[in-house]
Amino acid sequence: MRIKPGTALRLFTEDAFNYALQSVDDLASEKVNLAEVNPQTGPFYVEGAEPGDTLAIHIVDLTPARSWGASAAIPFFGGLTSTDVTSTLQDPLPDTTWIYHLDSATNTVGFEPRFGSGPSVALPVEPMLGTVGVAPAGREVRSSLVPARFGGNMDTPEMRAGVTTYLGVNVEGALWSLGDGHYRQGEGEACGTAVEGAMNVTVIVDLIKGSAPGWPRIESDTHYMAVGSARPLEDAWRSGQVELVRWFEQLYGYHQMDAYQLLSQTSLAPLANVVDVNYSTVLKAAKNLVPAATAFDGMHANMRELAQSLGTITYDF
Amino acid sequence: MRIKPGTALRLFTEDAFNYALQSVDDLASEKVNLAEVNPQTGPFYVEGAEPGDTLAIHIVDLTPARSWGASAAIPFFGGLTSTDVTSTLQDPLPDTTWIYHLDSATNTVGFEPRFGSGPSVALPVEPMLGTVGVAPAGREVRSSLVPARFGGNMDTPEMRAGVTTYLGVNVEGALWSLGDGHYRQGEGEACGTAVEGAMNVTVIVDLIKGSAPGWPRIESDTHYMAVGSARPLEDAWRSGQVELVRWFEQLYGYHQMDAYQLLSQTSLAPLANVVDVNYSTVLKAAKNLVPAATAFDGMHANMRELAQSLGTITYDF
Amino acid sequence: MRIKPGTALRLFTEDAFNYALQSVDDLASEKVNLAEVNPQTGPFYVEGAEPGDTLAIHIVDLTPARSWGASAAIPFFGGLTSTDVTSTLQDPLPDTTWIYHLDSATNTVGFEPRFGSGPSVALPVEPMLGTVGVAPAGREVRSSLVPARFGGNMDTPEMRAGVTTYLGVNVEGALWSLGDGHYRQGEGEACGTAVEGAMNVTVIVDLIKGSAPGWPRIESDTHYMAVGSARPLEDAWRSGQVELVRWFEQLYGYHQMDAYQLLSQTSLAPLANVVDVNYSTVLKAAKNLVPAATAFDGMHANMRELAQSLGTITYDF
Amino acid sequence: MRIKPGTALRLFTEDAFNYALQSVDDLASEKVNLAEVNPQTGPFYVEGAEPGDTLAIHIVDLTPARSWGASAAIPFFGGLTSTDVTSTLQDPLPDTTWIYHLDSATNTVGFEPRFGSGPSVALPVEPMLGTVGVAPAGREVRSSLVPARFGGNMDTPEMRAGVTTYLGVNVEGALWSLGDGHYRQGEGEACGTAVEGAMNVTVIVDLIKGSAPGWPRIESDTHYMAVGSARPLEDAWRSGQVELVRWFEQLYGYHQMDAYQLLSQTSLAPLANVVDVNYSTVLKAAKNLVPAATAFDGMHANMRELAQSLGTITYDF
Repeated sequence: MRIKPGTALRLFTEDAFNYALQSVDDLASEKVNLAEVNPQTGPFYVEGAEPGDTLAIHIVDLTPARSWGASAAIPFFGGLTSTDVTSTLQDPLPDTTWIYHLDSATNTVGFEPRFGSGPSVALPVEPMLGTVGVAPAGREVRSSLVPARFGGNMDTPEMRAGVTTYLGVNVEGALWSLGDGHYRQGEGEACGTAVEGAMNVTVIVDLIKGSAPGWPRIESDTHYMAVGSARPLEDAWRSGQVELVRWFEQLYGYHQMDAYQLLSQTSLAPLANVVDVNYSTVLKAAKNLVPAATAFDGMHANMRELAQSLGTITYDF
Repeated sequence: MRIKPGTALRLFTEDAFNYALQSVDDLASEKVNLAEVNPQTGPFYVEGAEPGDTLAIHIVDLTPARSWGASAAIPFFGGLTSTDVTSTLQDPLPDTTWIYHLDSATNTVGFEPRFGSGPSVALPVEPMLGTVGVAPAGREVRSSLVPARFGGNMDTPEMRAGVTTYLGVNVEGALWSLGDGHYRQGEGEACGTAVEGAMNVTVIVDLIKGSAPGWPRIESDTHYMAVGSARPLEDAWRSGQVELVRWFEQLYGYHQMDAYQLLSQTSLAPLANVVDVNYSTVLKAAKNLVPAATAFDGMHANMRELAQSLGTITYDF
Repeated sequence: MRIKPGTALRLFTEDAFNYALQSVDDLASEKVNLAEVNPQTGPFYVEGAEPGDTLAIHIVDLTPARSWGASAAIPFFGGLTSTDVTSTLQDPLPDTTWIYHLDSATNTVGFEPRFGSGPSVALPVEPMLGTVGVAPAGREVRSSLVPARFGGNMDTPEMRAGVTTYLGVNVEGALWSLGDGHYRQGEGEACGTAVEGAMNVTVIVDLIKGSAPGWPRIESDTHYMAVGSARPLEDAWRSGQVELVRWFEQLYGYHQMDAYQLLSQTSLAPLANVVDVNYSTVLKAAKNLVPAATAFDGMHANMRELAQSLGTITYDF
Repeated sequence: MRIKPGTALRLFTEDAFNYALQSVDDLASEKVNLAEVNPQTGPFYVEGAEPGDTLAIHIVDLTPARSWGASAAIPFFGGLTSTDVTSTLQDPLPDTTWIYHLDSATNTVGFEPRFGSGPSVALPVEPMLGTVGVAPAGREVRSSLVPARFGGNMDTPEMRAGVTTYLGVNVEGALWSLGDGHYRQGEGEACGTAVEGAMNVTVIVDLIKGSAPGWPRIESDTHYMAVGSARPLEDAWRSGQVELVRWFEQLYGYHQMDAYQLLSQTSLAPLANVVDVNYSTVLKAAKNLVPAATAFDGMHANMRELAQSLGTITYDF
């Protein structure tokens, strides 16, 4: 689908299991093909977008599209197991599916233990998107499980309603897509899957000519953020931290050494995922610790205003 | 010094540079010997402490002991430079010292750029200790720059007043120490040094027979935490995340798979340091998301009470 | 081009710089686009090849196609520099090109220092291919700089004339390609580039139904080998070592624990590259340490015979 | 024990299990305490050795001191299992001990499968020492399981009779030790243990004033080598490769960029271990590829001569 810069879109995105896990008896080893998971909504072609430009995607709203979400411990996938590349000779952990029912009155999802002991827990719904990205550079085509410079499967809880993501455009039209709705997720996404659920999504998409960041940047009302994705995990951190240094050089005119120093004392570093093809780390700088500044010509503030002008969001799929 | 379990102590700890950097003209390459930095206060011998026991250290108060702190970009030390083991053939970054003056009226420390451009910034004082540890196992003696299972130089902003740290005892008497006061620090401690400053410290130290955790655990009024330290960074994360799984098995009777799942959706993962001999990651579980539970027989709550009974803390060094 | 299993091919492959570095005055920063380097010869469609099959590529002959090769220290690329993901704030190493002239009388290439001091050295020509691979799984398209399960840019000196490479087929027709001729290369390919040169290549390609290995396997007259590719480097090693364990289970009927033990005392582990998108490690087991066995129904021996029947190889491009 | 530079010593070193595994029924989980393994012979005080000096240890002879060796897959220890820091929630591999009987007629050790299937194999005895080191810097005391800048548990098959190891002295007297005899070992030491056996050892020890290398260097009749030890494995490689660059700068007067280039095309990189507290990689440069040069004033050649003057080595313990 072709869109013009400045377009608002109401979208539906299927869950990362492609609706294959609907009960605790649906096992990933039988029903999930890791080469076919994480279906995306898109790609969208943005008119006028050229390599070197910056795509801005503002999430206006995320609303769960079903009354339940699913999570799974997939054999040899996840953070506390050996995997396809962190290879060992050990047996896998037991293939297990958890179903979380959404209680709209309390806006919680319910965790139910599958192994017989311990309390059930109601957890606040905190909707986010695991995947927001543009087409890769260098004529590559990547699985939607991959996070990288083009964004993609970063799996950070920071990708929530109200934030604006800035991505460097690699191909004509940008060819962006999104998906992988999570009703909630811990930092690191330890077991490899969040509370995965179909999601209704409202976004505004705009284009900035030039100014492509090296790695995804995210702006919220309260923070400047950058996301690095690589293995080992320290390289994800290094890449995100350097990107935030570069952003502070641009925002404030600092020498890189001063930006490095200031951010050493102020930046936050919540992990995003330690389970995907690349691991991802978010670096965050609080706006209230530094003087006011304007990023990307005020794009975030403009999109916030535009978002409010959309009024109450409803989905009629 | 020998102490009995339950003792409260008022301590002074020198800054990590051992007072060698007092102005921006004091350069680390000339005045700092990395083999001699980070002086600790201790070790203290706790009567009755034996291997397998758990030492509880509750930080009652942290108060800056000077009106300024120092930070430095030490050549080939830090997160955004090649180092002694992440070896490259590149030149080092410029050896630079920053001095932060403390404004007690606003309780801020002042960042001043050293390279000529960009704004000065007043940052809130948020005192923490970089280093809290016991003697290592296996008759090792480690530099105070090392974080590991014994605690040590974890360099996490979570080590603030009000938290209780649980450490497995490795040797008779535990031989704990603390130091490395930071007037504030970002997560990751990117440049390798925080706003380093001499600190007045009040702690209460107690002993739990047995129950030694595998990795340091920290309890605050709001969170259960574990700290993993290793390289690469994902191993620090794995170790801390497994430790938090083990704690939830103990607290709630969960099977490890259910604890793994629940924490995958709820735990926070703020990086501590990506610059020390081992990297450190904190894993945090919010108490308000799960049913009330009692850890280590209520040690944290008891110490909180005892801390309040100490009244206003003053230091007369 | 479509070929039948059992076909012998005489091919030409351009050098990895795409002929852009022809003198020491041609600098990588001006003439080389990392997104466009490493041109491959192919892809070739093998009739009858289906996912799950095994492609066997036997290198009959490698002959330099030019009288010189080139190597370069490309800014922010290589093993002893910070890179696009091992990000630091340091300056790059100096962009430098070396030209190696081939002396056909002695069959050596000449190293000439570029920075004025130290001896020139004549090094034996030891031709190899950096890149041999099939199309990736999961509908991905990867840069020819990537080594992975599909083979690709493994950059190991073991990829010389006389070896047979076994690759799991991921797509119909296998779509294999090769390229990246090296007149010689050290293990690890430290600076990121070998003595890169256009190469004349003779290969025989055959198909084994089923039996796809998990990672590339290589058989020579003297060794069984497996190649793992991942980051961090220990994951490349783990993957290759597990693959060799699996091969020994198949060859000898060992339990995995016995294969693990036997290979712990016998396998060699020469690094391939520590510079590409994934790092690669070769694991080698000497045939003369273990009883004779037959791999892939004797494919390697058959191809050796067939290669000899081809007689003297000449190239008439 | 105090020795003068130039002393030859005949030593005995107990096996790494401290003689605890004598049959396949002796299990590591019951009989081996990882905090107490790998007993060393030493430390020896070398008269005149001061920090910054270089200790040279030449291995004249290694002769197995028993008629059998042992190897074990210790739970949560080794390269193809999760470990104490590469933590997962999986079960351990089965605790297993293998006994290798030495056949002095054929000079082989016999591998016998423990899980019922597959052939027995006689493997050549290739004696080596896992551990050769001096006292650490910075007043640290490290477990004998640790390889680092001070040498230690590098576990490389290159540590065989005929090589000279150069280690930087950190403390007065150097305080060197050795141990961890292996009757043979594969590169990487995949399962975590070699064919461990008590060893008779003859060494000559000498002192070079100044010239301390950054990492251990090894010289044989055929190669210059350096050993890097760190995690992740690429940092071990980086450190060893940089050390070899530094050595070539010293040997030949090259600029670091030319040494980097030359070694990129010539150095070998056999892994040493991927299982110890730090991983170790050897970097090797063949002497026959480069002009003759003299390292450390000809120490290796001198020691070779002195070794021959010792005549036939016999041990009378």
